[in-house]
Amino acid sequence: MSKVQDYIDSHKDHFKEELFELLRIPSISTNSDHKGDVLDAAHYLVDRLEALDLDRVELFETDGNPIVFGELITDESKPTVLVYGHYDVQPPDPLGKWDTPPFEPTVRNGNIYARGASDDKGQSFTHVKALEAYRKTDSKFPVNIKFIFEGEEEIGSPHLVPFIKEHKEMLECDMVLISDTAMFAEDTPSLTYGLRGLAYMEVDVVGPNRDLHSGVYGGAVDNPANVMAEIISKLKDEDGVIQIPGFYDDVVELDEEEREEYTKLPFDEEGFKKDLGLDTLHGEEGYSTLERTSARPSLDVNGLWSGYQGEGAKTVLPSEAGAKISMRLVPDQDPKEIARLFKEYVESLAPESVDVTVTEHHGGHPIVTDLSFYGLQAAAEAFKNVYDKEPLFTREGGSIPIVADFENVLGAQSILMGFGLNSDAIHSPNEKFALKDFYRGISTSAKFFELLPKYALQPEH
Amino acid sequence: MSKVQDYIDSHKDHFKEELFELLRIPSISTNSDHKGDVLDAAHYLVDRLEALDLDRVELFETDGNPIVFGELITDESKPTVLVYGHYDVQPPDPLGKWDTPPFEPTVRNGNIYARGASDDKGQSFTHVKALEAYRKTDSKFPVNIKFIFEGEEEIGSPHLVPFIKEHKEMLECDMVLISDTAMFAEDTPSLTYGLRGLAYMEVDVVGPNRDLHSGVYGGAVDNPANVMAEIISKLKDEDGVIQIPGFYDDVVELDEEEREEYTKLPFDEEGFKKDLGLDTLHGEEGYSTLERTSARPSLDVNGLWSGYQGEGAKTVLPSEAGAKISMRLVPDQDPKEIARLFKEYVESLAPESVDVTVTEHHGGHPIVTDLSFYGLQAAAEAFKNVYDKEPLFTREGGSIPIVADFENVLGAQSILMGFGLNSDAIHSPNEKFALKDFYRGISTSAKFFELLPKYALQPEH
Repeated sequence: MSKVQDYIDSHKDHFKEELFELLRIPSISTNSDHKGDVLDAAHYLVDRLEALDLDRVELFETDGNPIVFGELITDESKPTVLVYGHYDVQPPDPLGKWDTPPFEPTVRNGNIYARGASDDKGQSFTHVKALEAYRKTDSKFPVNIKFIFEGEEEIGSPHLVPFIKEHKEMLECDMVLISDTAMFAEDTPSLTYGLRGLAYMEVDVVGPNRDLHSGVYGGAVDNPANVMAEIISKLKDEDGVIQIPGFYDDVVELDEEEREEYTKLPFDEEGFKKDLGLDTLHGEEGYSTLERTSARPSLDVNGLWSGYQGEGAKTVLPSEAGAKISMRLVPDQDPKEIARLFKEYVESLAPESVDVTVTEHHGGHPIVTDLSFYGLQAAAEAFKNVYDKEPLFTREGGSIPIVADFENVLGAQSILMGFGLNSDAIHSPNEKFALKDFYRGISTSAKFFELLPKYALQPEH
Repeated sequence: MSKVQDYIDSHKDHFKEELFELLRIPSISTNSDHKGDVLDAAHYLVDRLEALDLDRVELFETDGNPIVFGELITDESKPTVLVYGHYDVQPPDPLGKWDTPPFEPTVRNGNIYARGASDDKGQSFTHVKALEAYRKTDSKFPVNIKFIFEGEEEIGSPHLVPFIKEHKEMLECDMVLISDTAMFAEDTPSLTYGLRGLAYMEVDVVGPNRDLHSGVYGGAVDNPANVMAEIISKLKDEDGVIQIPGFYDDVVELDEEEREEYTKLPFDEEGFKKDLGLDTLHGEEGYSTLERTSARPSLDVNGLWSGYQGEGAKTVLPSEAGAKISMRLVPDQDPKEIARLFKEYVESLAPESVDVTVTEHHGGHPIVTDLSFYGLQAAAEAFKNVYDKEPLFTREGGSIPIVADFENVLGAQSILMGFGLNSDAIHSPNEKFALKDFYRGISTSAKFFELLPKYALQPEH
């Protein structure tokens, strides 16, 4: 292993330069204008994999963005790890709030600043570089490895599930390795064993057939923006309890033991508030901040628009109003069912005086992984070895819908080996990824592959 | 008079061409990028007035957009009419909804389509052309006339009131003539004797110091967009009654007689709904549609924005939300007082978890004019003469704050001689003005000037 670690230690700049090349590609999947960039990012990964002399590297076209696959089988008797990552990124807006351009990666006080630095280019690239450390030092790779990189994670992976169903044999594996989550805190490695699910909706309210003069018509015609506000205000009560009938029916309540574990986590609520510039937090009555963000469902308006948004005052009674609203889900809530309940409820709130349309964007299932799984144990020791700390086992608030899909289609559990931080500002301006964690991530990945065969032989505990 | 009318009849194309030149100038006062265009519009009017060989034509600079003044004194013993109009226009957005470009005036089925066609370039230009008909036919102009055209009406005339206060003598007059309102219906001339006032507010809600990932933070951090919806939902109840404490205190209730008059107006509610593409109207419980839009106050969201408004789904918990909200006022509500009550109430609704800021845009006083005023009687006969119909006396929902200011500063009542239609879609895409009403407007204006001296000698009735 020392040869491998030595290679990692001596090739940091080379790793960084290659990651920067990837970060410079604005592969924004939510905006069709960037289709070409998304394609460039895929080809860049193909090139990096081909440089590692694998058994197979292939770019699969889909009806959307392509899927990059790579494979190296060293010994059928050894475990096979499927590394999953995504090379697409969120839009950078609001652009004005970036200190340096989102697609010109810059290092400041030890952090790489760029859209995708943490989510997920920087994190997923660690495993490619870990494999490189073995290949370039003629070290026998300890396990079998497969890579699958998609370009549609930020739009709900519409083509990934059909793809894995279609290529079950090709993707057969003992576990999925994903680095797309955050460590609990700086220098505090964590293995995420729970993720929230997602139901993402869009509501459109249409009133008069054109924007009207608010003086001539105001008072006699229902206003879609006012109606939208009415509807949104009825989704939660003042205690942060979601009002959609049946919403909580399938929620698995935390038992006392779990709640006890939560209290042991080194969480600094004051620091959390300070980082957000907030004096007061607000959430579901009766639960702690950590419980609210990981073990309880939530509902948030993600976008809202109507009428005149420009400078000055325009006395218009708008013809339409729109909102994007998403819900984070916990076991055993089903995204499709929640979407149905949301639609039913919102439509029931719609007054006769307007037309209300509810449409469903992507969703994902919540998951909780078995803590005794040997892959998870190996990952824990790898973390301990590199960070010199016992990793925490945590649940996260974000959603990685694909984790549930891998479990359902391939029967494989996922190991969420996160190297990011919650303060990485993913999906926000000035997204960052700590350079040291990019390097430690590569080492941890390499160590994980080394340790895995040993754990595979142990009885599960 | 026949000479004058003959001139009008024989110069229609010339009038239209000149109006089109004015309409081609995108003099949008709400957007500072158009400052130059606004200036061009002012100079265009100066040129048109100078062509009429008046005693005085002058462009007055202000700290904002200039004010155009013109004057012709024919006989001190005759009444003096101050014609007021505005050469600035509303923004054209949403641009995509125009059938022809907003600043390329086009005639379709008898209508001029262009931003400002009706509000107010087309309407106010009629009086300039009426005067031209006298000047170009060597007819003695029957009264004294002054013109005042401003370029900031759509942003609340911030510099007009200081200007008229500063130039009281120059602007001294017996009445103000304004064409910036609508006829009750096609071929149904109306004299507007009442206007609603306006209080225009902006509300900003700020939560976390940056946009957040809705998965990582959702559930623990209050969402400014949800809070904004809460606030807006508390401004009116389900019966359309405004909930701001004290809001109705100064409202003069309609007496039975007035309500009786309202029922006599030829209002086609089905046609009104059909024109708007609505099945159901909604407004304050207990009042008719006409009462709601003219004699009762109203509150409408004019603009609303937060978070991600683009294509697809962005799972963001927005840092900010904003709204533009305006209220139409009736006698004796005071805009400043209403703005204060609004601010007080909205601030009282703000939860600790966010910062809520309420700012005031422009406002205006509601007015009701004395029906026995001789200028109004002369205007009525002029209408009858040209349209061959007794004009209706109506109250309108829109606001012309300057009318109250003229009364307060110059002690002059206003005659609201509207040639437009409510269906002109002012402030909306595809604004129009009927060509025939542009021409009939010129004739009515010319007739009004002819009749005015006679009425001036009659005892008021």
